[in-house]
Formats: sequence, structure tokens, C-alpha cells
Amino acid sequence: MRTIKCTVQYDGTNYHGWQIQENALTVQEVLEAALAEITGARPKIVGCGRTDTGVHAKAYVFHFKSDTAIPAEKLPYALNSHLPRDIVCFAAEDVPPEFHAKKSAVKKRYTYHIQNSRFPDVFLQNRAWFYPHPLDLEKMKQAAPAFLGTHDFIGFAAAGFTVKTTVRTIYALDVQKQGDLIQMDITGNGFLYNMVRIIAGTLVFVGAGRIDPAAMPDIIASGDRTRAGITAPACGLYLSEVCYEKET
Amino acid sequence: MRTIKCTVQYDGTNYHGWQIQENALTVQEVLEAALAEITGARPKIVGCGRTDTGVHAKAYVFHFKSDTAIPAEKLPYALNSHLPRDIVCFAAEDVPPEFHAKKSAVKKRYTYHIQNSRFPDVFLQNRAWFYPHPLDLEKMKQAAPAFLGTHDFIGFAAAGFTVKTTVRTIYALDVQKQGDLIQMDITGNGFLYNMVRIIAGTLVFVGAGRIDPAAMPDIIASGDRTRAGITAPACGLYLSEVCYEKET
Repeated sequence: MRTIKCTVQYDGTNYHGWQIQENALTVQEVLEAALAEITGARPKIVGCGRTDTGVHAKAYVFHFKSDTAIPAEKLPYALNSHLPRDIVCFAAEDVPPEFHAKKSAVKKRYTYHIQNSRFPDVFLQNRAWFYPHPLDLEKMKQAAPAFLGTHDFIGFAAAGFTVKTTVRTIYALDVQKQGDLIQMDITGNGFLYNMVRIIAGTLVFVGAGRIDPAAMPDIIASGDRTRAGITAPACGLYLSEVCYEKET
Repeated sequence: MRTIKCTVQYDGTNYHGWQIQENALTVQEVLEAALAEITGARPKIVGCGRTDTGVHAKAYVFHFKSDTAIPAEKLPYALNSHLPRDIVCFAAEDVPPEFHAKKSAVKKRYTYHIQNSRFPDVFLQNRAWFYPHPLDLEKMKQAAPAFLGTHDFIGFAAAGFTVKTTVRTIYALDVQKQGDLIQMDITGNGFLYNMVRIIAGTLVFVGAGRIDPAAMPDIIASGDRTRAGITAPACGLYLSEVCYEKET
């Protein structure tokens, strides 16, 4: 029995997130059905984490067990011929049997897109948060370092989480602007439910002058969800990278 | 009676081009209906030119006559509230009565996008020509200058045109690559039917090694459609700019 690791890109607009659920179309379900067609048996695929309705992925990783004879390098082509145009597999490799797409992940990078201009860009529809009011990029950059390092991020998590600990480590948080598009890139060892979207919403509140960047360390330490910003819309969020080896 | 010039952006994926036709949804029709709702009378709008099914616009210009009291600077907001998300008006101004969106135009710029990599990018679906085979960018750049200046472009026009002359002047033709995306930018005093898409298809043939860049002046001079490349797909084409004043 082979263990195969696959990396896919998807436009989440038309899906109810990654994870299979009843009465709603999900990315996992579409991938399992496509794998069933090319391997002859429907595998259970294990993803690197959940993504919400409308959230996108530039590089989502999953694994599955299979007896298929298709060589790994040919698998993306075979799979893509059975996938809709909004899901594309671009890498596959055989991995040791102990590999686990979620448990073996040591680092994840997410990107959040904000279109900041007077009128929405039609080509960013469902791809970025359209925010028409002025944002002070320098203030957003000033607030970013407060998130770095290891903190209890309980104030940046949506209600209803079931994790054992709300402590996470953030390795990098960059805010850049290109044309009308503000791009926030965040790398951490893991993220709480809605954590990236709440950080994005908080940085937008900072840029809008509603939160003082100097108050950010105190807001994080307070663990008080009401002192952070709103949860930014799903359409601006992209899972950009999942790392499986510790970088030193 | 006012004469109003408007500039809109649209994602052409779901439209049968610009111009009103029976039994098919067009951008012009949607805009006229939206203007009817906000001005109280359906104006006849005059566009800067036709675009084909699936072709996009970053800055399409049209004009119309109206007695509306809405100030020009408020018109885009009023109009957008009656438009679907894939058409956005971002500029409007009062112009002299003799202004004509098509006849007054002195220069147009089109952009053509080619995604050149092994796997299609889901975020460029319907937005670029996916071309998975290797392309030699340097050869494409070498071929570009042959198009500059005034030529009879009859070999780069689709059959069935009705124009008086097939002579056009190209002011600039740039080919750049960013990541996987090759971007061709072309500026001219006007373009024949499908001309930009045939030039894009020809440059791709050059990049693929099927046409020698040194042969390009001769191919243009020949006026022979069969010596040029294929007509590149509509989805990669964007009307990027329409100029109404001669630049010196």
C-alpha cells in the first residue's frame, strides 16, 4: 500500500470549504470522487486542515493510501482530467507510511488580500476583501511585529473551538501593498479557528485608525476577543504553503 | 442635454461581448438597463468599439446623452448599485457634445495574458490563455519590433471585416514575463477584427519555435493570414486603455 502526498490549488468560491459534509459540495469530496475514478477505489483522503466556505488555497496538501500503479509524477495529469477547472493538482509524490498531511505539518503560511480603493476591481471579485475607505499602511506595518513569537491567541479565535491549547507561535507577518492590493502574509506553527481572518480584520482596524498600533501587545495579552477587529471576509484568504520539515 | 463619458471595467466571461444582440446577454445591454433605472429613461450608449465573447476590459469607454441631474462624480456609485459584480463603472465626466467614444479615440492599448506553465492556475481561469509548452521569451521579444510603425495588417485580420483600409499604426508592443504569466501590451491607432489575438497567437508560435523571429517583417509584408499564427483565445484579451488626446 502506497502513501501518496498531493498538493492542490483551488478557488474556494463555489465550495463549502475543504471538509466533507452532508448536503453541501466540498473540495475533499470532489477530490475523493476524482481519485476513485482514476484509481478504481475511493480512498479516504486526509487534508492538512479545514478551510471555510469561500477560502482559497494556493498549495493545499493532503495524503491518501492506495494500491494504484499510476506513477506519482503522472498522477496530477490523471487527476486533473477528472477535476473541475477550479481545483488543480500540481504535485504528487510517494512518502513514507507515517506521513500525515495534518500531523506532520510544522508550519503554515496564509495570505490575506485586501483591495483598498474607491471602486471594486471586477477581477478581484471573490478573491479579495474590497475595503473602500482609506487605510494607513505604515500603521498596519507598525502593528505587525506585536504578533510575532509565542502568545496565547485566545482573543483571536472564533467561539466554539475544541483545541487543547490556544498558544501558537507566529514566525513572520508581512504587510505589503502593490497597486490597490494590500497583501498580508503570515507564517506560524498553527492557527486557531478564524485566527488569520481576525488578525487581518484587526490590522484593517489599525489602518483605519480605530486601533492604535502601540496598543497591539496589550490587546493580544488581554485575550479579549472584543478588543480585536472584525473577522475579515473568507474570500480574501488563501492557504499559501504547508511546510513539513523544520527549517533552522 | 448632457453628453456623459463613462469608463467601466468588466469581466467578459459571462457576456456575449459588448454590442447588443438578440438572444444573448451583452455588456452594453446591461449598462443601458442600469442607466435607465437611475436616469429614468433608457439612453442609447455608444461604445469605443466591439469586444468579443469572453474578452475583458480594464478601461472601456462609452458615452451617452441624458438630461439626468445626477452629478458626474456621483454617477459611478449610482450606476454600480444597479450593476452585477462583473461590471464596474469607475469614472464619469461631462464632455463636449461632439465627443464620440469611438470616433474621438486616437489610440487604444490592449493587453494579452498567457499563463505558461505545466499546470493551469485556477485563479487565471477565464483570465489568461493557458499554454503548457515551453516558450522562448527572448524570441518573442525579438519578433515584436517588426510590428511597430505603419503596415497593412491584412494578414492579421479575421475574415469578414468591412473596414475601408487595413492599414494601422502600432506605437508600442512590449512582451514581459512575471512568474508564469507572459503579458503582451500593444498600443495602436486602431486594430482590425481579431488583430490583437492573431498577433498574440503569432508571438506564441515564435516562442514555440514554429516561426523564426527574423521572418516576421516578411510575414507582415506578405499579407498572408496563413503565415501568421493562430487566433489566441478570447479569455486572455483585455482592453486596457482608450486615449482621446494625441500625445506628442
